[in-house]
Amino acid sequence: MKKGELTRQAILEAGLKMASSVGLEDVTIGELAKVTGMSKSGLFAHFQSKENLQLEILAFAGQVFADRIVVPALNVPAGVARVKALVDNWIGWTARLTGGCIFVAASTEFSDRPGPVRDFLLRQQADWLDSLTRLARSAMRVGDFREDIDPGQFAFDLYSLLLGFHLYDKLLQDAKTRQRQQAALERLLAAYRPPAAGVSEPLASF
Amino acid sequence: MKKGELTRQAILEAGLKMASSVGLEDVTIGELAKVTGMSKSGLFAHFQSKENLQLEILAFAGQVFADRIVVPALNVPAGVARVKALVDNWIGWTARLTGGCIFVAASTEFSDRPGPVRDFLLRQQADWLDSLTRLARSAMRVGDFREDIDPGQFAFDLYSLLLGFHLYDKLLQDAKTRQRQQAALERLLAAYRPPAAGVSEPLASF
Repeated sequence: MKKGELTRQAILEAGLKMASSVGLEDVTIGELAKVTGMSKSGLFAHFQSKENLQLEILAFAGQVFADRIVVPALNVPAGVARVKALVDNWIGWTARLTGGCIFVAASTEFSDRPGPVRDFLLRQQADWLDSLTRLARSAMRVGDFREDIDPGQFAFDLYSLLLGFHLYDKLLQDAKTRQRQQAALERLLAAYRPPAAGVSEPLASF
Repeated sequence: MKKGELTRQAILEAGLKMASSVGLEDVTIGELAKVTGMSKSGLFAHFQSKENLQLEILAFAGQVFADRIVVPALNVPAGVARVKALVDNWIGWTARLTGGCIFVAASTEFSDRPGPVRDFLLRQQADWLDSLTRLARSAMRVGDFREDIDPGQFAFDLYSLLLGFHLYDKLLQDAKTRQRQQAALERLLAAYRPPAAGVSEPLASF
């Protein structure tokens, strides 16, 4: 990478940390200049506007998210193992951001703030849910999930579980959080699992 | 109510709506003065500081939340019917706030902002999770849930489901959201239900 590109990455990394802590709306070129020790005019030359800075931070976060969460999980065999890897990667991602996942925070922050930032975030969240849907499809293909499940429902169920973990972990700092999350994941996987060999009819409760 | 009290309620109602839309951190006495058509000095006399205003808005939201969500559910017979009533009431509460539930939004907004507002919010969220834990206990008492379940785990599971609904509904505005939430709730209730009469051993998957 060239020096200009390295500088840009360093600014965006600082911007991502700041957005996780105080919210994307409260990241400003002025505040970021203070944190990175750069001049406000130098930063302005990189990003032109607050809105553009917010979009660049989200795009950068999306790249980090793909590199650290989605791509490594695709290197794990499809099925339950890949689901667990993705969950572990996601939890690792929230652990390195003190305020938590920027996408979770921005989703409530921008739910009622129409504009290009909300539109971009919405596409990123739709892509993430597509990844979770494909995750369910690949688990169906290898026989870890039943063939009659709805992969989009699994995406809803799994993201809900992660959102619950996030609130317990970041706000409540409840000691049992990891245990609760794991119990919920085991229950979720059990609900999507095919009936055990030798059991001919589907379980009555589902 | 006296006139002063009525005025205070009207200001807090406007503050709650504003906090739902732009976040609790971006509600200021100045902005609220504009929206309510009051003088900034008049508002300042009511609330003294931004932090106090935020605390008052959260306390007001907590009262509305209790009156519209928790108390009416307690008038429904304990068990699955009460769980469903509470979920419906919660969804109704988020529907009347354009930006969504103030507690969900503030939980990410204040996860990394230490201070009295975060402390107060944390107590409110702990109270809410206590309500959900008691909800599970009452369902156990009437036989709608098994006796060996962990009520605190149910609180985690149910709140996770509501958080998933919230993100889908407010950000993605996905047409299938209500259907997904209902399918997830039915699966959750099935997992906590006692085995059907005549089935002597517990289901193998749990």
